[in-house]
Amino acid sequence: MQLIDGKKVAGDIKLEIKAEVEKIKANGGKAPHLAAVLIGHDGGSETYVAYKIKDCEAVGFKSSLILYEDDVSEDQLLAKIHELNNDDDLDGFIVQLPLPEHIAEQKIIEAINPKKDVDGFHAANVGRMVIGLPTFVSATPFGIMELMKRYRIETKGKNCVVVGRSQIVGRPLSILLSQKGIDATVTVAHSRTKDIKELCAHADILVAALGSPEFVTKDMVKEGAVVIDVGTTRVPSDETKSGFRLKGDVLFDEVAPKCSFITPVPGGVGPMTRVSLLHNTLLAAKKEIYS
Amino acid sequence: MQLIDGKKVAGDIKLEIKAEVEKIKANGGKAPHLAAVLIGHDGGSETYVAYKIKDCEAVGFKSSLILYEDDVSEDQLLAKIHELNNDDDLDGFIVQLPLPEHIAEQKIIEAINPKKDVDGFHAANVGRMVIGLPTFVSATPFGIMELMKRYRIETKGKNCVVVGRSQIVGRPLSILLSQKGIDATVTVAHSRTKDIKELCAHADILVAALGSPEFVTKDMVKEGAVVIDVGTTRVPSDETKSGFRLKGDVLFDEVAPKCSFITPVPGGVGPMTRVSLLHNTLLAAKKEIYS
Repeated sequence: MQLIDGKKVAGDIKLEIKAEVEKIKANGGKAPHLAAVLIGHDGGSETYVAYKIKDCEAVGFKSSLILYEDDVSEDQLLAKIHELNNDDDLDGFIVQLPLPEHIAEQKIIEAINPKKDVDGFHAANVGRMVIGLPTFVSATPFGIMELMKRYRIETKGKNCVVVGRSQIVGRPLSILLSQKGIDATVTVAHSRTKDIKELCAHADILVAALGSPEFVTKDMVKEGAVVIDVGTTRVPSDETKSGFRLKGDVLFDEVAPKCSFITPVPGGVGPMTRVSLLHNTLLAAKKEIYS
Repeated sequence: MQLIDGKKVAGDIKLEIKAEVEKIKANGGKAPHLAAVLIGHDGGSETYVAYKIKDCEAVGFKSSLILYEDDVSEDQLLAKIHELNNDDDLDGFIVQLPLPEHIAEQKIIEAINPKKDVDGFHAANVGRMVIGLPTFVSATPFGIMELMKRYRIETKGKNCVVVGRSQIVGRPLSILLSQKGIDATVTVAHSRTKDIKELCAHADILVAALGSPEFVTKDMVKEGAVVIDVGTTRVPSDETKSGFRLKGDVLFDEVAPKCSFITPVPGGVGPMTRVSLLHNTLLAAKKEIYS
């Protein structure tokens, strides 16, 4: 069994991006510029955005932070997005989700210029992924595809089961895994799926992305399978300073011995999602998606 | 075994659309207006466009036909698309594919305003389908979903195998079938899939969309399965005036007796694709997708 070390791979990618930014600057180019819009004071959101800004600094990007109170109106936010869309110095930006209830999330996402949508949530970018055009792939699917590539995991003709059909993980990942060149035979399982245990037990590659702690047990995993655990449920813990710890969707201790490869939680898929934003911002700066 | 009569359902839908157009007109509204852009003299394309114009007449739509010779430049075509995008009298338009080799198909498709993209090929509309937003669904997936709905075919929790991952059939159909509310467990099979016969033999719903005549034989079909045949390969024939006939991807005579439902070729999925354009144009006129 080989552990997939997402923390190490994420670190490698950050160094690669940093080197590329240095080259761009050495050639007289400008640093990629990412902006993040943060609304209100949700603790999780504040932490995530702080990490994103810190990541930018670490690789030599320029970053901007735009803060609003919880009572910002939808129109104010749309006006700001319009301004960011038209800011030539800015390569990409994100609006940190979730939004306050009085703001229509989808309307905000669709107002972002797809060329600057480095989160990859805009319908035009999702559609480009389906069609097979260059696009900004969203964080978790990007992270998983990159881990599989760097660990040279064979996908062609493999039976792959993706448990979960969310718009940000299961659905896009299932599409990417069955595209030409990757060529897995992909089944999307979900809450309505019958005989889900048996289905999983036939998978060469099993992706658990349902958000149900320790859902995948050893009887659901084929000997030698690749297991990708996307779950990150917070559970109370006496052993950590924060008072909680993360639990994956896979019962790691009993499943790991059966696997050829497995991602741990934490330290597997999680660290990869942060570098995807850097990756996409660099692509935006280089105008590699929309030329 | 029940035969799925696409010709009858398509006729029903045309009557429904006609009745709705009459109501719109009676209330002082204007008739939905579809334009078709046809380039060159490909026999198939000329025939398809002629049918589309005829269909518009049959349901009371206004239609416009825009003709170009094969040597039209990409820039000329883009200028026309820009004009059509901004023509307030026009609800939707299509550019008949395939295009001459010197014109980049994807560039043309992406130049169409998604709000008028009644073929449903624009990345923004494909993405909206993935996200689950209202959208223009392209012809064949629309036709199949509509047939299944009108024949009250149960999809929840059913194992569905879609053979073929094309951008216009297999891929979008597989997404639609596994969306919430439809809830099938969908596997996308393709040329790299191993043990494809066994996979098909476990399907409650089998969709053959690979374009390989009579690929699906009776050993690949479960007793009581629903079989949807998307294949339409032209094969030479002495028995028809045209000198050819259409062959499906399913060996109908031996497969049909095992099925609960099956679509014939011709007369199954085929006739449905034509009404999808009318359906989408009506949606565009009513501004039901992008409000």
